[in-house]
Formats: sequence, structure tokens, C-alpha cells
Amino acid sequence: MSLDRIFKAESVAVIGASKDETKRGYQTIKILQEEKYEGLIYPVNPKEKTILGLKCYKSVLDILERIDLALIATPAHTVKEILEECGKKGIGGAVVLAGGFGELGGEGKRLEEEIVHTAREKGIRMIGPNTSGMISVANGLNLVGLQNVPHGSIALLTQSGNIALTLITEAALKSQKGFNYYVGVGNEADIKFHEYLEYFTSDPDTKAILIYVEGLREGRQFLQQASKTLLTKPIVLLKSGRSAKGSKSAGSHTGALAGISEVASSAFKTAGIITVEHSDEMFPIAETLSSLPLLHESSIAILADGGGHATIAADYLSELGIKLPEFEKDTIDRLAAILPHNASLANPIDVAGGTDSNPAIFADCAEILLEDSNIHGLLIVGLFGGYGIRFAKKLAFMEEDAAHRMGKLVNTSRKPIVLHSLFNYAKPHSLDLLRYYNIPVYDSLEIACKCVEALFNYGRCLKEANNNTGHFQLNWGAKAIREGQEIIDGALAEGRKVLLEHEAKELLRLHGVSVSVDHLARNEEEAVKMAEELGGEVVMKIVSPDILHKSDAGGVRLKLKNEQEVRTAFKEIVNSAVEYRPGADIKGCLVSRMAGEGVEVIVGTKIDEQFGPVVMFGLGGILVEVLKDVSFRVIPVSEREAASMIKEIKASAVLDGVRGKPPCDKHAIAQLIEKISEVIEAYPAIYEMDLNPVIVHEEGLTIVDARIILSK
Amino acid sequence: MSLDRIFKAESVAVIGASKDETKRGYQTIKILQEEKYEGLIYPVNPKEKTILGLKCYKSVLDILERIDLALIATPAHTVKEILEECGKKGIGGAVVLAGGFGELGGEGKRLEEEIVHTAREKGIRMIGPNTSGMISVANGLNLVGLQNVPHGSIALLTQSGNIALTLITEAALKSQKGFNYYVGVGNEADIKFHEYLEYFTSDPDTKAILIYVEGLREGRQFLQQASKTLLTKPIVLLKSGRSAKGSKSAGSHTGALAGISEVASSAFKTAGIITVEHSDEMFPIAETLSSLPLLHESSIAILADGGGHATIAADYLSELGIKLPEFEKDTIDRLAAILPHNASLANPIDVAGGTDSNPAIFADCAEILLEDSNIHGLLIVGLFGGYGIRFAKKLAFMEEDAAHRMGKLVNTSRKPIVLHSLFNYAKPHSLDLLRYYNIPVYDSLEIACKCVEALFNYGRCLKEANNNTGHFQLNWGAKAIREGQEIIDGALAEGRKVLLEHEAKELLRLHGVSVSVDHLARNEEEAVKMAEELGGEVVMKIVSPDILHKSDAGGVRLKLKNEQEVRTAFKEIVNSAVEYRPGADIKGCLVSRMAGEGVEVIVGTKIDEQFGPVVMFGLGGILVEVLKDVSFRVIPVSEREAASMIKEIKASAVLDGVRGKPPCDKHAIAQLIEKISEVIEAYPAIYEMDLNPVIVHEEGLTIVDARIILSK
Repeated sequence: MSLDRIFKAESVAVIGASKDETKRGYQTIKILQEEKYEGLIYPVNPKEKTILGLKCYKSVLDILERIDLALIATPAHTVKEILEECGKKGIGGAVVLAGGFGELGGEGKRLEEEIVHTAREKGIRMIGPNTSGMISVANGLNLVGLQNVPHGSIALLTQSGNIALTLITEAALKSQKGFNYYVGVGNEADIKFHEYLEYFTSDPDTKAILIYVEGLREGRQFLQQASKTLLTKPIVLLKSGRSAKGSKSAGSHTGALAGISEVASSAFKTAGIITVEHSDEMFPIAETLSSLPLLHESSIAILADGGGHATIAADYLSELGIKLPEFEKDTIDRLAAILPHNASLANPIDVAGGTDSNPAIFADCAEILLEDSNIHGLLIVGLFGGYGIRFAKKLAFMEEDAAHRMGKLVNTSRKPIVLHSLFNYAKPHSLDLLRYYNIPVYDSLEIACKCVEALFNYGRCLKEANNNTGHFQLNWGAKAIREGQEIIDGALAEGRKVLLEHEAKELLRLHGVSVSVDHLARNEEEAVKMAEELGGEVVMKIVSPDILHKSDAGGVRLKLKNEQEVRTAFKEIVNSAVEYRPGADIKGCLVSRMAGEGVEVIVGTKIDEQFGPVVMFGLGGILVEVLKDVSFRVIPVSEREAASMIKEIKASAVLDGVRGKPPCDKHAIAQLIEKISEVIEAYPAIYEMDLNPVIVHEEGLTIVDARIILSK
Repeated sequence: MSLDRIFKAESVAVIGASKDETKRGYQTIKILQEEKYEGLIYPVNPKEKTILGLKCYKSVLDILERIDLALIATPAHTVKEILEECGKKGIGGAVVLAGGFGELGGEGKRLEEEIVHTAREKGIRMIGPNTSGMISVANGLNLVGLQNVPHGSIALLTQSGNIALTLITEAALKSQKGFNYYVGVGNEADIKFHEYLEYFTSDPDTKAILIYVEGLREGRQFLQQASKTLLTKPIVLLKSGRSAKGSKSAGSHTGALAGISEVASSAFKTAGIITVEHSDEMFPIAETLSSLPLLHESSIAILADGGGHATIAADYLSELGIKLPEFEKDTIDRLAAILPHNASLANPIDVAGGTDSNPAIFADCAEILLEDSNIHGLLIVGLFGGYGIRFAKKLAFMEEDAAHRMGKLVNTSRKPIVLHSLFNYAKPHSLDLLRYYNIPVYDSLEIACKCVEALFNYGRCLKEANNNTGHFQLNWGAKAIREGQEIIDGALAEGRKVLLEHEAKELLRLHGVSVSVDHLARNEEEAVKMAEELGGEVVMKIVSPDILHKSDAGGVRLKLKNEQEVRTAFKEIVNSAVEYRPGADIKGCLVSRMAGEGVEVIVGTKIDEQFGPVVMFGLGGILVEVLKDVSFRVIPVSEREAASMIKEIKASAVLDGVRGKPPCDKHAIAQLIEKISEVIEAYPAIYEMDLNPVIVHEEGLTIVDARIILSK
């Protein structure tokens, strides 16, 4: 069902309308009138006759005309009954302002479940509860109590009213861009993030979507929708609640689930979302992405009228992974013809006073630079906009000339120009002109650099999305195999929540994972026979449902070379296990071939609160234990995505061979991760899987130990 | 010699004075007149009679009165002769604007050396060349051509005129603070950073020093001065030229030396300097440190009028290492009495609408919070300053009341308050009032958080500096030992630039470093005898001045258990070495005891371009190779400082024992680093030292291999 009856509502009932100027029930009506809402307004309050010149109704049921949307501005305990009336009236949407629901837990949570049930039953889609409201700017449908929201093409989804206020205030004071929608998602009891996202994706007036989120309720659906949205418009997102204190604050604020912060950031990245860590970058990046052509390569030029700005910008862009390539010879010759001899004509360019008497030279330089085939965009840093203020008034006109030319240049070249100006605060006309041409201007050099990075990141996301077979999907239809399900069911039937090592490996083998040939030896004689069959050095490990940590129980022996060693090992392992856990059900020993040389890695899976099953990859040993050098992906994970996980860890170079060791088989790891993803999807009963260690050889890999834990 | 004749000059000669309005020789005189310079101005130009109503002189020698300072605004090639005249006239200082000196290299560098020589000979202290000039704001001595610099108590030292312009513009538009000095240090041909620093340290009107630097020429002197300055005033510094492109840009801009960026950042930190990475944080942090009481503990409260701001601030402060402790019970009770029941009274506080009808409640909350003994400062984030704009005009007066009370509160409590306001751009009166009381206000929440961090970092620096025995010193007077010097001289006499392993170890042993008992066995028989004397397993290594990389030459054999193995090893090592490098001068084999169990670490030294000798510490193996997880300190390094180096590496926890291993002897590593520092100081001939690996045991350590390279 479309959300048109909410966002394009032709009539609104304000339930809890009031004559008290301090109440939302008054303010909303006043703002709707002042902002020239195009539809009809129906105040509802049993105690009043008229409010602000409008007839006031006892109940929505007393209104004769069709009502699309209800703003419910009454306390929590009244909401259920009101929704029932709205349902009877055939109202399609409701915005529930009151707090006191799920964010309080316990009783509030039950109340929230009740109102969701009522809304669903009555066919009402609901924003909130505990929301700051919604605005559809184009038709003046403003249910937030916040006036003068600049109209533009950014759709804003937020879990905080004050963050929205920050963004709107910033837009109004510093930009010519604005918003077409504002939704305070509140507790997301009915409509979820991904549904708003879907609506805005199909909205032709929306060019970018800006999201402030503390925790997602339906993370997987959100990812799926985001990776579709990405194909036509960018999503800029700040996820807070990353720290313990922040997450506690978010919990008390929106009742949001925090989840594991590394999982969230990799999930967003995979879905092509532009994530932002600092709130002061949110609006600038959304503004830039909704205004400028994208960067299709990471190569830009920096044009500066001072060495300091050039150096700082070069440093920061380098840290952000943006390249500053050499110019073509022709470019250098043409620049040399218009700039003084002491100008620096390498990238970054320092005009060294070359624009002091004529700042229109900025436009000349921009034209030359954007014609260079090595250069895909331009960052101008420094004084532009301030020449008329700082030096001589007439220079302002030359700056305006340059602004017109650079504005048109972006359009003809389809290459972006981003500007930093330390005179942005002084609001010179030339900078307004640039904004008119969709060239944003920032007073923070660092924020301007972050905008350049975002233009590249979104450009790359789009390119990858178009090259890939598809976007993130909730599932790939992996199916359980009967023998696999039997292993799991067997364990559950025995009351076990853990698969034995050989069961876990067998499950993996059924799905095409190459596992070592292990044999369960029930006694010493069998062990000797199996070791002979395997040949070479062998490993022996205790098998018992009662012993989870085999090493701790003295249950592992490595590098056994001959019959005598195997016999001794079997006796010692069993004795040691009995001593460790008297009465343990000992099935015997697993006999396997010693794994060859290679690099130790770990592959695991777990269930994330926001995103469901995720897979984790890291190098073994202290790298994972001390440095937490691991990467995550939300399942399902393709081999291609798995390859990017492997590349992502900081110590990835170890896999390419260090200290004279050969490179190891990364392809085999990626295949393993994809298979694991398949197994996790096929058997929802699996709660956690831990392949640790996996030895990756020059060719292939050996899963030395596998542990699978089942859900309750 | 004091720089008073420059900064407090009572008379200035403007050499290269001009009637052309576009020339510095005109602009400077005009600005000196307009800014009411308190001294006398003497234009100098052989072609003019008068300029701007002042008599113009042919040469400084024609002026009868005493001249303190000369601004030299003429081209590079004229400077030497002019300085000679200035010398004859007894002028004490010169500001040389022209570029075309050291920053060009070659001929320019020679020209620079000449003018420095002339200046020194004539007793003239020189700013520049290649400088934007200097301003002493208090007495109107403005030689920069930049008007309306807001007067305040920040001294600004910069290698870029445009960065200075950025900071000054920002101060004028967004703050009530300003500058008392501005120096464009230019090429630092004569006066160096540390000399300006020393001058400002003794200046009673300077409360903070703000520095933009691309590269230092006398890094060690700078550190020494900085660590003295720190005791009375904070230094805020941005070092650019960190990336390859940035460092190239800096090179072409100021001819600065880039050095190793990690060395610089640890050096600055050790000296107690507050380093800044983003240019948009420079002025705010200097403003905050020059205005507010410091944070003596890292524990503050966040007070927000919206959950989103509370969460974002909590996240970011946590990432910056600032704690948000629980409140005392009394605090919570008092807050509960004035805030609504749905307010979040944990830290961060969300007033949840509690200030909507009366923003003066911010001051009530601030008073309660700063009385809490767990709380050492306060960050207010959100709408304050905008209640009068956003809701109702009369609320503005309540905000002003709150501003007065909070302003006084900082003074009485001696605890800092930092404010973020999204209405900062709208310039409400209440925010001006806060600034009047020295409470800075920022429109970026993240920058406000960085200011809180700086208040804590400088507070901690001061505390540490006062607890320590002293500050960074150029040297600690470590002396060479005769036998040590003989080892080095012997190698040099043989034309060697590398000490043999046993020589390097002997040198360390002479300085009290515990090294393994190694023996040089010249033949197989000696080797057997030594191995027997040592007992247990031994190691044998080739000794040859022609073989630097012993392993590559097959020159190392480990775990030799008995006579037979020692004999075989000796033969094999020697044969292998001869084959590897025919004709090599083979001295024999070093026989040592096998090192026991432990963690492998590396200790090394090198010469940094900016800071001279530095010591490096890291864990051995892939951690140092792949992850570059190392820490640096400028020598000399105390045992205490060494301990902080050890703690600083990311994988430091490995030394505390992981995977059931015992913690290893960090004390021994710190002692080793201190001794190494001593050796490096005592023997300037040492260019590089590499102790790799060093095995650190539960008690003590073993230096397995030591390499010392001598300077040319």
C-alpha cells in the first residue's frame, strides 16, 4: 500500500486540537494555515466549538467529508480508542505524537503492540508513536510545528527531532537547498525505515535521502531497499549510538537497538549507503550529492590561492583516498600562460598571487583543469568570494563573472566543482551565485574534502551496483539437505545445543565444503588402523558431547608419527578427558591428517540484533584477539563480496605472503565464506558457527576445527 | 637577545615605500596610519619625496632618529645591500617579504645564507624572508597588509599567510577573542619557531599560542622550548604536509622539511603540545584554551535538549576518551525536582522539553551538575540561544538570564562549560553574552567535543609536567666510554660503516645493557669448547664484515644440542658464507645460548630530518611489517617515557600475556630503551641501531641480534 494518503493527504483531522497557544494541537493548525496547506483541516476536540476560525468536531466520526490523515496529539492511553474511530471513519494514515510506548519497555511496549494491532486491523498506516511528526513541504502539509523549512529535493528521515531541526536550520542559513519531506520515524511501530525509503525512491522530486538513525528494527529489509534505492538516488546516513554511553542514550531516547557497530557500518557500506560519522557533515554531503555530477574516478585537481590551504587539502584528500594526479603537458602550458612564474603548477595548484588582481582567473583555471582527461573534478580552496571584501570592491564583480562561468562549466563538463571559502560567513553575492548553479560552498575546508570523497564514493557504489548481478537480497533460496537436517535434528533430539566436531564438518561437506577426512575411532585399534590408512603425521582429538573445549580437557594431540605414538595418545586423551569431566559420554577420538603449512584464519557467524545472521572473517591468533582485526558482512554473501571482506582487514597483506612465505589461497577462503552463508541460510536452527582455526595453504585450505551452536 | 626591538618597535622604516596603491610599500604605510601605530614611520625610496604625508628618505642612513625595525619590501636581489645599510644605521630588526630564497633551492639557498650572514654580522634579527609579515596588534604595528585583526590574547605563528587569514576572519566573524601577535615565519632563515615561542612565553599578554607549521628547521630546540612554554600557556599546533602530495606541496610552498609524520606527532605530544588535524578546529581550540578553566579529570556531563544531540555527543566524546560518569544521588534528586518525569537523568541528560517554556532552567541544571564531585566540566548541546528565535521572543530574555548565571558559574566553580548551539549562525544576544563571560559557542557539535578534549589534554599535560622531574631536554649529558669509542673508531679505521654483531653488543654491554654472553669462535674446536662452557642449546651465527644479512647467507643455525651438531653447523655456516660471498673476510662464528621463551620485540633508532635521533619500539613479526604498529620518541628518552611508548602500540596487550602466556617484563624493555637513548647520545657517530629481534621473557630480555650503522 502506498503512503500517498499520508504524504499527499488532501484532508487532515487534528485530534486533540486546542485553543492553548503552547499546545501542538493549536500550533499545528496555525502552521498549516500559515504555510498554506492545500488540503482541508478538521480540528477535533469535544470541548471546543471553533479553533482558529475552523469548526471543531467532537469526533472524527462527526465529519462528513473524506479524511486522509489524522494527527493524533493526545496522550498515550487515548490513542487506541482514537485509532478505532479513525478506522471506522476510513482514515488512511495517522501521525501519533505521544511518547510513553515501546521506548519505556514493559507496559509501554504492550500498549504499542495494541495500537499497532488496531491500526493494522483498521487499515491505517501509522507514523510514530513518539515522533516529532512529518512534513510534506511541497503541499504545505506541516505536522511538525517547525516553520520556514526550506523547500528542496532532500527527503529527511530521522529518529531525533532536534537533529532534524539542526539540519533544517543549517540549510536555511547556509545553503540554497532544502527538503521535500521530513519524517520523524519515532518508534517505527508500524511504518519502518525501509517503507519510507521505498516511497521516497519512487518519488520523482526526491534527489537525495538523508537519514539520522540510532537503531534499526528491520535491518535486513532496510538493506534490501537501500541497495535498490541506490540505483537512482543517494542515501546519506549517520548512525549514532556507537559507544556504550551513546547506545544507552539512544536506548532511552528511541528504544532503539544498538547492535554491533562494525556490523552496521559494513552493512551500510555493502548496501551503497554513504555513511557519515560527524553530524556537521550530514547536510553538506546530502547537499553536494543532490546537486553535483558524481566523480567517476577518484582523481581531482586542487586549486588554491595559498600554499597552506593547498597543503592541508592535499593531506586530507590523500587520507580519504582521493588521488591528485599529474596534469597533462598541455594543461601545464595553458596554466603557465595565465599564472605568475612562481605559481605551483603541480597538483595541488597554488596560484601564488595570480588571482589577486583578477579573481576571474579562477574560472580560466577551472576551464583548463576540467578539460584535462586525468582530472575528474575540482576542489577550490581559499579566499574566493572574499576578494571583493578583502582587497578592492571591484574585484567582487570579477568573482561574480567567475561564478557564472564555473556554474555553467559544471553543466557542460559534467565534472563537479566543490568550493571552500573562508569568506562564506560574510555571504558575498558571488557565493550565492555559485549555489544558484548548484555548486555548494563550505567554510570548513575539511567538510569540503569530505564532500569530494562522497561524490567519489557514491559514484563508485553506482558503478559497482551496475556491474554486479544484483543488490542485497534477504535470501538466496539456499535449501537444507535432508541428511544435513537429520544431523541437526539428531542433536536436538538428544537435547544437545552443540554439534560434535565430526557432525559439524559433515554438515559442511554435504554443502560442498572441502573438509578433511576425519574418522571417529572408538578404540585404540581403530585409531591405529585409521592413522595407517591416512598415512603421514596425524592429529587426534577427543569426541564427547560433554566436552566443548577440547584443548582444555587435554583432548588434543598433534603430529603423531607412528603406531606407538597413536596408541599412547589414545590412552592419554581418554584418561585426561575422564579426569577433566568424570562421567563424560566419550565417543572416542577423531583421527585426521595433520594440516600442512599455511596462514591461520577464522571464519564465524553470529546473529546481529539489527541485521540478523552475519559472517565474520579474520586472521587467527593475536590479530583477532588483541587487535580485533576482523570484517563482517550480512548474510547472504556472494563470493565477490567475500573477496572484499578478505581485502578489508588491516593485516590482509599477510595473506599475500610475508617473510618469504608464498601467497595463500584467498579464492578458497572466499568460496568457503560463500558456502557458510549458504549453510546459515539453509538451516535457521544454527545460531552460531565458528571455524577456528582454518589453515589456508598455497592451494586450498584445511578446516582444523568446526563448532556449530544451535538456537534454543 | 630579546625580540622587543621587533615586536615593540618604536620606529619603523618602510624600505621600498611606494605611491602605488597596489604595492605593499604603500599599503603598509596606510595601514600603520589607519591602525594608529604608536611609533614613528619612515618611508624609504630614493625616487619619492613624500608618501602619504610623510617625508620619504633615500636611504635609512639619511634618517637621523633611531630606527628599531625595517620592513624590507624590495626584491630578493636587493636585500643583502639593504641589510648592510640597516646594520650601519643600528637597526635591530628586519622583516623581509621577498620570496626567491631558500624555498627555490640552489641559487636561492645561497642567497638566503648570504643575507643571514649579513644580518648576524650586523646584529639584526630577521623575520623571513618569504614571509607575509608580522603584526603586534596592541601597538598597531601592522606589517601584514591585513586590517581589522581582532585584538586578543592569542599569539599566532604561521608558515602560511592564508591560513592566518582564515583564522583571523573566523575570529572576527564568530568569536569575541582575537590575537596579540601574528608572525609569518617565512623561511625561518634567522629567527626560528622556538625563538618566537620563547618570546611569547615571557609575554604577559599572551594566553595561548597557535601554530601552523609545514616543517620545522630546528625541531629539537622547538620541543625543548615548547615543553617549557607548556608550564604557563598552551600551544595549539596543526602540522600539515603529512601525506606525500601534501609534503610536496609544503616543499614548494615554504621549502619545509616534512620528516616522518609519526615521529612529529609523538614528538609534539611528548612536549605537551595540543595537536590538531583539521584546520577548522584550530581557532576554536585556541579560543577555548585561552578562555576556560582546564579539565583536571576526563569526566564531564552532557546537557542536551534533544536525544539525538545527546547521543551524538556521547558517542564522539567516548571515542575521544572523555568519560561521562554517573551522577551522585543528590544530583539526580535535584535534577528530578526541576525536569519533567520523562527527562533522562543519566549522563548524557536529555531535558525532554523541560526547558521549552523556560530556558533559564539550563542554568539551574548547570549549577546542580557542576556541584557534583564526579563532574569536572559541562558540555551543553542543542538549541540554547535559539529559544527566543524558534519558540517565543520572551524566551530570549530567559536565555540571557541563563547566560549571565552560567558565565559567573564558570568563574566560581572553576569548571569549564563548552556550548554547541545550532543557532550560532543567527547570532542571538545570549550567545554573545556567553562569549563575554569567556564561554565559547560552536555551531559544530563535533568541534565543541574536540574543545572539551583539548581542555582535558592540556590539563593532563600540565599535571604530568608538574609531576615529572623536568621537560624535554636537548641532551642529558651521556658520555662516551673510552672502550666504546675504540670499538667505533676501530670499525671506522677499517673503512667499515657497520659494527659486527659482537662489537655492537659489547658497546651496549659497556653501557650497562644486559647482553647475552657471546663468544667469537675462530674455528670448529673453539666453537665446541664454547658450546660446552655455555651448556644447553646454542645458536651459531657467521661473523663477517662483508655479510650484513646473516640469514640470507645461510649463516645462522639454531638449537644446536651437542658436539656433533656444533661441528656440522660450523662447517656448513662457513661453507655457505663463502659460497654466498666469495672472498668474504670471515672472522668465525658467534656462539650464544638459545634465548628462552618470550615475546619478540624490536627496538631501533634512526635520524629524523626535523627532530634528529629518535627511538622506535614495536612488536616483532608481521605486526611491525604489515601493520606498522610502532611508536616513536625523540631522544633522550627517560624510562618513564619509554614505558608510555610501550603502552602506546596497538597490540600492547600482547605484552601482558595472551593465550595463557605469562606477562612479559615491560620494565626491562623500558630500561633497554632508556639505555639505548643514552648510547645514541654518547656516540654521535651512530647513525642507526637495530635490535631485532629482542626476546622479552617473564623476567628480563635477550637481545638476539644487534646491528649498528655508523654515519658517513
